[in-house]
Amino acid sequence: MKSLTSLALTSDPSGLRVLDQRRLPHEEHWVTCRDPEHMIELIQGLAVRGAPLIGVAAALAMAHYAESGANAEAIRSASTRLRAARPTAVNLMAAIDRLLGLPELTKDSVVREAEAIFEADVASCEAQAELGAALISDGDSILTHCNAGGLVAAGIGTALGVLRRAHEQGKRIHVYVDETRPLLQGARITAWELGKLGIDHTLICDNMAASLMGQGKIQKVFVGADRIAKNGDVANKIGTYGVAVLAHHHRVPFYVVAPRTTFDSGCPSGKDIPIEQRAADEVRAGKAPTTSRVYNPAFDVTPRELITGIVLDDGML
Amino acid sequence: MKSLTSLALTSDPSGLRVLDQRRLPHEEHWVTCRDPEHMIELIQGLAVRGAPLIGVAAALAMAHYAESGANAEAIRSASTRLRAARPTAVNLMAAIDRLLGLPELTKDSVVREAEAIFEADVASCEAQAELGAALISDGDSILTHCNAGGLVAAGIGTALGVLRRAHEQGKRIHVYVDETRPLLQGARITAWELGKLGIDHTLICDNMAASLMGQGKIQKVFVGADRIAKNGDVANKIGTYGVAVLAHHHRVPFYVVAPRTTFDSGCPSGKDIPIEQRAADEVRAGKAPTTSRVYNPAFDVTPRELITGIVLDDGML
Repeated sequence: MKSLTSLALTSDPSGLRVLDQRRLPHEEHWVTCRDPEHMIELIQGLAVRGAPLIGVAAALAMAHYAESGANAEAIRSASTRLRAARPTAVNLMAAIDRLLGLPELTKDSVVREAEAIFEADVASCEAQAELGAALISDGDSILTHCNAGGLVAAGIGTALGVLRRAHEQGKRIHVYVDETRPLLQGARITAWELGKLGIDHTLICDNMAASLMGQGKIQKVFVGADRIAKNGDVANKIGTYGVAVLAHHHRVPFYVVAPRTTFDSGCPSGKDIPIEQRAADEVRAGKAPTTSRVYNPAFDVTPRELITGIVLDDGML
Repeated sequence: MKSLTSLALTSDPSGLRVLDQRRLPHEEHWVTCRDPEHMIELIQGLAVRGAPLIGVAAALAMAHYAESGANAEAIRSASTRLRAARPTAVNLMAAIDRLLGLPELTKDSVVREAEAIFEADVASCEAQAELGAALISDGDSILTHCNAGGLVAAGIGTALGVLRRAHEQGKRIHVYVDETRPLLQGARITAWELGKLGIDHTLICDNMAASLMGQGKIQKVFVGADRIAKNGDVANKIGTYGVAVLAHHHRVPFYVVAPRTTFDSGCPSGKDIPIEQRAADEVRAGKAPTTSRVYNPAFDVTPRELITGIVLDDGML
């Protein structure tokens, strides 16, 4: 079994460890995954989060289970339970389906397939990073929204992977990080990740991006994507559309970075993407009157006209 | 001595009471002001906040002091200390200067002048509300940012006064309230105030306004102003400029509501308005790494090209 390491996961013959992302940024607490049932708990409890990472972590949990001597029947049964750990996680189902689709469920075949899943994600991130970094100039200040980094993938992430690669290439960049209300993924996770990478950055409230653009302090915007419609409209974390409008107004290039698998061919345009409404108390946050109604969509849709380019793992659109 | 009542202040012969705004929205706690020294404490401790309200509250504290039998010398001495309670509060200094400029500091003259200061603010708010409400149609959904209501004035406020008047006129309106990070004046105060007034409203994170506009759910924007430059550029709470850009992109009319005194004739354009930077921990809010740098301007400047109209107490611009 190979030694595999990402920002939020390590796997080697001695075991599988995952970073408990609920405790970030105040604590870097690693948990050793005991078995597939434990991975289900970790996924359901949100210790392991981010669509690509969940799939990779689940596959590696099965590899360790196979290594520990589980037979084909035990592997099949545990995989089926793990596949259902989070029903909306397409990557989780896809990863487990790759294992269940193997001609035979042996220790070697499961381990090799899990390693291949890990490595495919790493390669996809690398390809996006290479293509995207070419768009960044020395001295650029770049705005990003939410978290599209190495915590949610086996590789270096999507939008943040691009920034990391530009930094590694010696380009001096400064990253402005939208805090990303209501769940503050920017403040809690992106800022922490950029700090770990040694990338110069400044945290802002979401409503401050316009002020920076108005002063000419942002040269480019890079964000990730949750889903891309066939026509190129992009669904991403709530607030992304507003950033795209601001970028358009200030003539700042706006780039989306995502693996090709983010395209949903069953979805003709952004209008066809359903928008999940989340709990009101995420917005109230204990500060607002509980009697006030709340609008809390999980994401919004940026129409393709506002997007300068989509950086994929197999090319640019 | 007249009985005077506003949302955050009541004054009658039995005493002067102010609403402790620090405890909103969870508690409506009223404090009886003992004397001018106590008012200094209340202002410095932020129990009494909002530029117009501070001036009115200070003047009424002096009126009650005069009623209690203070002589001209004591009034002059207490006024001088009160005038310095918050050095940047222009309205506080202007109100106290009106008292100190009286031909003689008697009980009657001080009480009458304080009442006149209160009533002038009420009249100014009324005039803005009348002019502004005429812009609102039955069925409008309106976005507002920060708090420009009856808590910071003796009258019914500026932008919120307009919404209140439209509501009183029987127009069915719905107000979307930007929470207004980092200090959440929208979530804490505007939402509370709209609830008190019985105005239908929905709280959103600042980054959700674009999503609503993109769906055609906002017909108008109304905001207040901290300072208006001679050329019509408007400084207001951070995030206002972004809302103005979004409104422009979506062809949504964007109105500013303020008393004529908000114009700063010494300030040719928005470029000349200094932008105060506030403490980083307001943005970090205990969530972000303390090592991340923060950009936290108190306000931004909206250029006049993005403003459909400025509603003043003596007309529209």
